[in-house]
Amino acid sequence: MATDPQPALAASPGKEPRTARGRATLRKLLDAAAKEFGELGFHAASISGITRRAGTALGSFYTYFDSKEAIFSALVRDMSQSVAEAAVEAMPSGVWGVAREREILAAFLVFARQNKEIYRIIDEAEFADPASYRAHYQDAAARIAARLDESVQQGQVTPGDNEVRAWALMGMNVFLGLRYGVWDESRPTGEVAAAIEALLRDGLAVR
Amino acid sequence: MATDPQPALAASPGKEPRTARGRATLRKLLDAAAKEFGELGFHAASISGITRRAGTALGSFYTYFDSKEAIFSALVRDMSQSVAEAAVEAMPSGVWGVAREREILAAFLVFARQNKEIYRIIDEAEFADPASYRAHYQDAAARIAARLDESVQQGQVTPGDNEVRAWALMGMNVFLGLRYGVWDESRPTGEVAAAIEALLRDGLAVR
Repeated sequence: MATDPQPALAASPGKEPRTARGRATLRKLLDAAAKEFGELGFHAASISGITRRAGTALGSFYTYFDSKEAIFSALVRDMSQSVAEAAVEAMPSGVWGVAREREILAAFLVFARQNKEIYRIIDEAEFADPASYRAHYQDAAARIAARLDESVQQGQVTPGDNEVRAWALMGMNVFLGLRYGVWDESRPTGEVAAAIEALLRDGLAVR
Repeated sequence: MATDPQPALAASPGKEPRTARGRATLRKLLDAAAKEFGELGFHAASISGITRRAGTALGSFYTYFDSKEAIFSALVRDMSQSVAEAAVEAMPSGVWGVAREREILAAFLVFARQNKEIYRIIDEAEFADPASYRAHYQDAAARIAARLDESVQQGQVTPGDNEVRAWALMGMNVFLGLRYGVWDESRPTGEVAAAIEALLRDGLAVR
């Protein structure tokens, strides 16, 4: 499994936890922040709401974060990394190209169903933390382009404009996750992924 | 050119303009609202800011709209309709399938460059007016699915799951518009659209 260069838990600078217990508290704060921001939105969310949900003292919050803005940015990075890790875990070894993209989409649809608040939080970053919003999508597109480059090397995907293709695949996955993950679970994830596999394998045109 | 069933200018119920002059004032208010919400965001935007930008009296605002929420909803519907109209105008007659989708994407990239505030406003609707946000994407996906159905009828596109395909195409276009329209104009729109035409025509898989 590939490792991500970003640290798993991002506290404010100089406030990184040094013990397992500290990392556990930081994890609790991030999980509580996901609920608080997901339910209330950035403006209505509060630090006291986060510590109440986490079951920690207010002082613990400031041990790791400087502000509400700081934990929101850390949460966006944390969620961005969860999406990346879910994709890595879904990748069968020795499989490239279209079949690999199908597996990753199917796993992402399941992930979106299990983590519905992620859309609201990342989408709100467009307003509350534009730099993190842009970084989330630029990083995800770069990972997809790297997968496509590898698949071209493996002779599974035709050479082409992998940057444009990556942004297209990312957009597909984001909107399919919204439609068939967050909004409506009535269609089997495998069925949606199979339709996209067919599209990516053969295109749409009658030959 | 197809006509849209939605009215072009949506005032609050019972406040629709009856004269050309009234429609011109309403248009000025919506254009001013696009600038006000686009620059300041929903929360910081104000009715007085909108009327100042429009050069109209405060009373004119209430002639057509009940509240800031009402003009925001009307603006999202208005922008949604502009996107739909840009797609209709881009459609060459007698062309279906992949070539038609290329033309529509190329036109959308130009549209996104010329109307950069549209992303911020429609994305903020997820929080400020969730029903309009959902309607915008559901309507757009339904239009794309109808285009694909027609292309299948014309023998230009293979039969398949046109609902899933439509959400995929919409997601592609939205993210390509963000990347190559709003964020960065350095790549020619025709080049991006050609890469997507190749993807939709032949897929990615080596045969």
